[in-house]
Formats: sequence, structure tokens, C-alpha cells
Amino acid sequence: MAAAEPIRTDAVVIGAGPVGLFQVFQLGLQEIHVELIDALPHLGGQCAELYPDKPIYDIPGLPVCGGRELAERLERQMAPMRPGIHLGQIVERLAARDDGRFDVETSSGQCFDASCVVIAGGIGAFEPKRLKIDGLAAFEGRQLFHSVPDAQLLAGRQVVIVGGEQEAVDTALALTAEPGDAAPASVTLVHRRDVLKADPAQIAEVERRIGDGRLRFVAGQPTGFTADGDRLRALELMAPDASSTELPLDVVLVRQGLSPHLGPIARWGLQIERKQLVVDTAGFETSVAGIHAVGDVNTYPGKKKLIVCGFHEATLAAFAAAARLFPDRPAHLQYTTTSPRLHRLLGVGG
Amino acid sequence: MAAAEPIRTDAVVIGAGPVGLFQVFQLGLQEIHVELIDALPHLGGQCAELYPDKPIYDIPGLPVCGGRELAERLERQMAPMRPGIHLGQIVERLAARDDGRFDVETSSGQCFDASCVVIAGGIGAFEPKRLKIDGLAAFEGRQLFHSVPDAQLLAGRQVVIVGGEQEAVDTALALTAEPGDAAPASVTLVHRRDVLKADPAQIAEVERRIGDGRLRFVAGQPTGFTADGDRLRALELMAPDASSTELPLDVVLVRQGLSPHLGPIARWGLQIERKQLVVDTAGFETSVAGIHAVGDVNTYPGKKKLIVCGFHEATLAAFAAAARLFPDRPAHLQYTTTSPRLHRLLGVGG
Repeated sequence: MAAAEPIRTDAVVIGAGPVGLFQVFQLGLQEIHVELIDALPHLGGQCAELYPDKPIYDIPGLPVCGGRELAERLERQMAPMRPGIHLGQIVERLAARDDGRFDVETSSGQCFDASCVVIAGGIGAFEPKRLKIDGLAAFEGRQLFHSVPDAQLLAGRQVVIVGGEQEAVDTALALTAEPGDAAPASVTLVHRRDVLKADPAQIAEVERRIGDGRLRFVAGQPTGFTADGDRLRALELMAPDASSTELPLDVVLVRQGLSPHLGPIARWGLQIERKQLVVDTAGFETSVAGIHAVGDVNTYPGKKKLIVCGFHEATLAAFAAAARLFPDRPAHLQYTTTSPRLHRLLGVGG
Repeated sequence: MAAAEPIRTDAVVIGAGPVGLFQVFQLGLQEIHVELIDALPHLGGQCAELYPDKPIYDIPGLPVCGGRELAERLERQMAPMRPGIHLGQIVERLAARDDGRFDVETSSGQCFDASCVVIAGGIGAFEPKRLKIDGLAAFEGRQLFHSVPDAQLLAGRQVVIVGGEQEAVDTALALTAEPGDAAPASVTLVHRRDVLKADPAQIAEVERRIGDGRLRFVAGQPTGFTADGDRLRALELMAPDASSTELPLDVVLVRQGLSPHLGPIARWGLQIERKQLVVDTAGFETSVAGIHAVGDVNTYPGKKKLIVCGFHEATLAAFAAAARLFPDRPAHLQYTTTSPRLHRLLGVGG
């Protein structure tokens, strides 16, 4: 993929969960423009992804608030700061330059040239859970998929779905919904044990389709594969009784849900302790000056992985970033309740 | 005043502003019972007192929120924790005991015996602004008042009100409202200059009453007094032209509003830097183990006096207090979204 022209910006914020969104707001109050990047296709992070409607009770001043509602509130709050927004991409590369600025590059090939960087990366980027089988990754995009590919790639094929939870069940039902030319030749659901975890009505429907032969179920753990040159032929399965079988196939859809991975963050040369970025508590700066880390991705003495703590970290990180970017600005603290400068930035009042 | 029986408690929280209220909530999640004390006669602190309706824009997830609304939200959030509440009193004494617990005593004579103490004292307790005249305090409660005393103490007396803002104007209008036996013999409003700062309609009414002789106004700054034995006879005033006059009187009402004072906090033997309590950032503990300080009253590297920071400080202070009170409790972090234990404490869910 050809790299796009780098976007020159004050700050890049990596991660658009609650803390990343509030980070944009706090940097905005400091008149620091942000380009915001997230691996997910929407704002709100794991909070909006994993428990959109489950109540959170410990956000100060919000006695009860769902994850999606919290994300929407924070999105509205940071809107006046007009960040650039770059979704569905992972930051692959982050490197300090000789001139004190930072190069940032995403999996989509978008580059940034930034004065400072804040990693609000939660527990990492959400990526599909993969099968841990050596060599299998070579078939990715041709016979191995972690999302559902175009129907034409599955038409007339022997399709194997791996997984036992909602996402695998959804996929199995979708692929066996309508017979016809575009349908796979066969659909087999593979899970390591004989119990599915999903909506009970959908599990009942899965059982009906197994009963009438439209869907097949095999209990087993994929442990290897057989290939014929560059063509994947079968998965090796270990059954619950430890016997081994081979399952012939044309296409494998691994539908085991998402799992967070620290991923590329671990390769940026920042000091790490137990998979967390080490920061100071004055400005939540990592071991590299100009790179801050806030929220669940960081560690310091007393650290608790709570959203309320991330909000504070984002606030002090914004002040520290401002002190670095604008060394001559008076340190006098201004309040959003009374400051005309902040009212102008927020687009409120006179 | 006879001291009441001490209340034995897990924690005393001093200060019921936004951070103090959230401190009660966070201690509650740790199953730590709180007795909450504030100098003001209501919950909410300076936030509800000084800008009840002015919007705050930087509380995370609340794009616009008045001070009173914020206090009410936090009060609702902490309600399941059922703290004891003690308003209208200042903590005069805080002392560590030999057994590791703390003695706390308020200006009302209420005593507490507490396992730990959190000072969420903002910029101190709000106290009436006083006249800085040596020796005048000796007349307090007899001829000098900072609130309006019973009408019978003013009936037939020459009353002088000192102040030029809303509170002084309110008092001047109240005392000149109804003539009769219970009314003062005369009411004089004294302000250092000839301009009042208050509601324009009320200022117009003040001018009407000056016009019809019910109220007198004198421009001047009180600089001294004359007394006859233990009886206050007159205030010495310096007029705007620097000439000096004497104003005979029976009673002085100093109505210059409230001002925060660190007050007794400065006398508790805690390490102080520039009028702030020095704390660590892991558990926001002062120089005395078991006494924490959160919100505007504390200082540490990077400190910003923002409510959002106080919320974080209160959270980590609660964890540190719990580690001290329950050393054997597993450190495993529980979330309000998923923990049945926390749901029980909050009174929600099954």
C-alpha cells in the first residue's frame, strides 16, 4: 500500500476509548490539535464494544451509565476540539525523530508527523483470536479468514467455522440460511467441546439445522493441518477423547471473537513492566520524553485500572504536553467555569 | 460545651465538596463506613456555594454541569454508602493516638474515634471575612456578629452593618423592613467606597430607604474602635478622602461574605508546602500514615487544582485506606459493571 502524505499535527492520540476521548478534550483545552486513531471501526473502545448496555456505577457524577452512553457523552464533550479521526487501523510504527518530533504510521499506511503522542491504548488493540498452529497463517486471505469474506469466495465450498460462542453461531446460521448457487457446499461448525455459549434461541436453531443436515457439528480442538503445495486441504482435530481426526475443507473461518493485544506498542522501545508502559505521575510520560501513556495501558505505584483514574492521567498528560509545546505559556491554571479563553475553545458563552 | 460521646467509625472525611462526596462513594465500595463533616450547612462545598448555576465544562462525561447539579449527582451516587453527616461544624482537632487510631473533634464538640481520616478540605473551611482590627474580636457574640443575631439583640439599638456586596445589602434591607418595637433604633451601612455590588433592584431599594431616612450610608474603612471598659462604643472610620471619623454604635454586623481559611488544618502537624498538604501519589497519604488528603488541599509533583484530579485522588486514597484497614483482603480489582459484591454495596441488580 502506498503511504499517504504525512499529516502534520500537534498530537497523535492512540486509542479512542473513554480515556482517549477525554484526552482529546483536555489537549483541546490546551489548544493542542489531535489526530485520533483507533483499531476499532467506531469511537468508544472496549467500553462501547464489550459492554455497551451494561451499567457502570463508578464514573463520578454519573450514578448509572452504560458503556455506549459514556462513550457518546465523551464524544459530545470533545467535539468542539475537532480532532482528525482515523478508525479501523492499528498504529504499527512510532519512532522519535532527530528533531524531537515523532513519526507515526498506521496499518492503513497513513503517516503522521507529531509534536507529541499519547498512547491511550487500553489493554491493547482488539484483534481476532487466532488458531495457534504453526504455518497456518500462510493461508490467510485465501483459505483462512477471521471475518466473513464475500459470499462468492464461499459458494460451492466446504466451509469450516471454528468457535463456540456468539460470533461463531451467528456465522454458522448466516451461512446456512438460504440454499442456492451462492451457498457453500457444506458448513461445519468446530468447537473444542460439545457446548455452545450464545443466545439460547439461536443455539436451538443451530440444533434444528444440525438435525435436518444443513449444518454439521464436530467437537474437537484444531491442532494442525494438511496441505497440498500452497493449498490447504484439511484441519487436524483432537477430539474430546484425545483421538485425532482429519476434517477436509476448502475454507476456514476462525470466529473466536476479539482479544486485546499490546501488539506493536511493545516494539516502540518504551520501558515496559508486566505488559504495561511505565510512566511518571506528574505528566504520565513514558520513558521517552514527548510520549505519554494514559489509562489501562500504563503503570505506576498505586495504579488501578479504572476509568476515573484515566481521566486524571489524561488531564495531567495534557498539561505536561502543553508545557513541552508552549514553554513560554504562563502556568496559571484557568477554569472552564470562568475563563473566556476556554469558553472560546469550547464554543460557549459570549 | 460538653463533649458528646465519641462516634467510633472506620473513616472520617473532612469536607463535603464534590471530591469529599466521591470519597465517601469510593470508601463505600471498599466497605469502609464514613462520618462526613463540613463547615457549611449543606453538602456540595464551595462548588455548590460559589457557583451553583454557573456551568462547569470539564467534568468527564458531563459536557455542561452546574455546581449545584454536580453536587446533587455526587450526593445521589454516594447515598447507598449511608455516611453519617455532620454539617455546620469545623474540625478543630485531629490527633493520632497511640493505638494507631485518630481522635477528631469538631467546633460543635462532636468527637470521633476513627481508623483513618481523609481531608477533602478544598482550600479550607469557609469562614466569614473579618475586620482586621486588633482587639475587636473581644466583643464577638455580645456586640460584634458575623451572622444576623436574634431580633431582640438588635431592638432599639444603633446597628452598623459593614460590607458592600449582596450579603450586606440583604441585611440592610431586612433590618429596615418593618418599623416597630422590635426594630433597631438606627441602621447604618458602612462600606469603604460609595459603590455597592449587588442586585440592581435591591440597590435601588437601598437608595430609596436612604432617601426616606430609614437607612443611613457612610463611606469609610473601619480602622479602629473606641470602648468604655468592656463596652464597644464606636468604630473609627477612614473616609475615602483619608479623613477620620467616629461612628457611635451598639452593635456591629460584619457582613462581608465568606472566605476560605486553611484554619485548624495547619495545626495538625502534617507536612505543608505553600499552604497545601504534601501527599504521595500512590495513596494520597499525608506525612502521617492513615491521614490522606485529596482535592485542592493537597500538593504533589504535577498537581492541578481540578475536580477531575480530585476524583482520581479519592479513588486511590480509598484503595490505600482499604489496604491499611483490611491487610488480608485480596488485592484483585473488582469492577462495578460486573462484581456481585459491588452490586450488593450499591443496592443494584439481583
